[in-house]
Amino acid sequence: MTIPLSVIWKDEQLTILDQRLLPQAVQYETLETLEQVHDAIFQLKVRGAPAIGIAAAYGLALAARRHKTVDIESFRKDVKKDADYLIASRPTAVNLAWAVARLINRIEQAGTVAQAKTQLIEEAQLIRDEDEAACRNIGEHALELLADKERVLTICNAGSIATAKYGTALAPFHLGKERGQEFQVYACETRPLFQGGRLTVWELQQAGVDVTLITDSMAAHTIAAKGIEAIIVGADRITANGDTANKIGTLNLALLAQAYGIPFYVAAPVSTFDLSLETGSSIPIEERAAEEVATIGTQQIAPAGTKVFNPAFDVTPAKYITAIITERGIIRPNDEQTIEAQLYAVPSKGETV
Amino acid sequence: MTIPLSVIWKDEQLTILDQRLLPQAVQYETLETLEQVHDAIFQLKVRGAPAIGIAAAYGLALAARRHKTVDIESFRKDVKKDADYLIASRPTAVNLAWAVARLINRIEQAGTVAQAKTQLIEEAQLIRDEDEAACRNIGEHALELLADKERVLTICNAGSIATAKYGTALAPFHLGKERGQEFQVYACETRPLFQGGRLTVWELQQAGVDVTLITDSMAAHTIAAKGIEAIIVGADRITANGDTANKIGTLNLALLAQAYGIPFYVAAPVSTFDLSLETGSSIPIEERAAEEVATIGTQQIAPAGTKVFNPAFDVTPAKYITAIITERGIIRPNDEQTIEAQLYAVPSKGETV
Repeated sequence: MTIPLSVIWKDEQLTILDQRLLPQAVQYETLETLEQVHDAIFQLKVRGAPAIGIAAAYGLALAARRHKTVDIESFRKDVKKDADYLIASRPTAVNLAWAVARLINRIEQAGTVAQAKTQLIEEAQLIRDEDEAACRNIGEHALELLADKERVLTICNAGSIATAKYGTALAPFHLGKERGQEFQVYACETRPLFQGGRLTVWELQQAGVDVTLITDSMAAHTIAAKGIEAIIVGADRITANGDTANKIGTLNLALLAQAYGIPFYVAAPVSTFDLSLETGSSIPIEERAAEEVATIGTQQIAPAGTKVFNPAFDVTPAKYITAIITERGIIRPNDEQTIEAQLYAVPSKGETV
Repeated sequence: MTIPLSVIWKDEQLTILDQRLLPQAVQYETLETLEQVHDAIFQLKVRGAPAIGIAAAYGLALAARRHKTVDIESFRKDVKKDADYLIASRPTAVNLAWAVARLINRIEQAGTVAQAKTQLIEEAQLIRDEDEAACRNIGEHALELLADKERVLTICNAGSIATAKYGTALAPFHLGKERGQEFQVYACETRPLFQGGRLTVWELQQAGVDVTLITDSMAAHTIAAKGIEAIIVGADRITANGDTANKIGTLNLALLAQAYGIPFYVAAPVSTFDLSLETGSSIPIEERAAEEVATIGTQQIAPAGTKVFNPAFDVTPAKYITAIITERGIIRPNDEQTIEAQLYAVPSKGETV
């Protein structure tokens, strides 16, 4: 029983979990070239914004070590070219561009190529460690809120395998397990791509956390019949007023939490906040292909050519969110204090106020 | 563009639509023996309570014609034996036992075998025609409520192919089409068995009704984004206070309707009411096998051995139901007047009050 990881740096080697194959096969793959890292991201073997950023950072550092030049300026140019190539593997992944930019900046002042090579590895390691620490802090804060709760519902996979370790929404379950606080987790399967059934169920089983799978349609009945005490989800983007974009189906759950009077928590690192957007209505919602809903593998579950509405995520209005759990602390959307004020009012662990 | 039927009696022949094969194949099958009718019901080729009752009635009448005896008492015994055999094909299907009992009663006074054989066919025809008339009336009343509405959401298949014709929840769409009132129907796919994607989408397409498929998880976002104006669903059982058991996922939708302030309608014939039960808490909820959720065809969507909670239906409290639409008229659950009083206060079409 261990918390599974999806991006592993050990003995100077980068290994990733091919998440496309779950749950049928658990297959780890060692990536040795920049092309392999690019393809692993492009082909969605690595998923989850933080995990993608971490894989890209290690990938860039790994490839840099092979560059033969001893001229630091040429070296920096080579690394920049590699970075652009990596970013192109998933242009919309903000964490990818952000992580790669951190590595580029880090070697800005390096005097020698050897020094720069070491710095790149260090920075990749730092990005990874910071993410683990952030997730761990999110878990700590989430456990405060879930101290007297046992039965919790979640959707999608905001888990360890989407981050460095622990995850966001799943962090309290992993951390609780380490400390002997046992949860009964109910995982919504998360149509259309089944991240709940494929990834969350597998991840929690690996970690020895009690998990039960339900279809998304069973959420209301399960809350009532099983006495669900809280719902916790991840986030793709949180706007200045606290509106939260997340996997399609999240809004359903927020409204059910409201109807049953149970808390609805969003767990996300500070980097998920986009304070440049005032409300969730500014977030464009990606609509994906009909086939993603109408077929499952080779199985056709609707007539060929069926008209499908397939939004990839939805936006939960802040008023339905009991608290947003970040690595810096707990934010409660309200009319008195802005999200931004709360975000910078809460000290991170060990920080002097 | 025609409304599809699933049980057809024509030229003294019984033909059924094999609903298991939808939407991949549209295959009609002529049933000639009692065994074939038994198996068609047992193997779920015929589904939907009214459709099962109608198929069983025709099946019994069909088989009775082959009995060689000229002694009316022996004949009645043979028919009773056939009836018991048919009922065993799906012991929990109330409509099946009810339809078969009507045929048995009908020949109680028959003087000759020839007369009885004719009466059995007549009674089966009557059961079918009454069901079509009931569904049509439900459609009429539903159209009154939906007069100014265009975009309507539904779940599962309370459709023409589950009844003699028109269906219950889908009746207003078919009837509206006949009269030139066009709806935009959104069909929830209805996990775990996809009756929405497989059956409702197919049925409405056949009838030329505009239908869009969504996953169950997309309901809240779709209501908000597409401006859904009403939700209409069928029912498995309605208790004395108006609580309604229906396909799992119905309760989700009722709570979403409440949150968005749009009407939530239940469409069901009077035979669906079980006034012997005071509230929905007395309705036992069937839990089905884990595989039904964890695998789709041969596709595994959760690790082998995953713990699954798989309730087949849920109970929507009456307070979330705007109106129950029956063939006798529209019932509005409220504190002043019982469902029973309303049920017998509303005259059916043409009936003298």
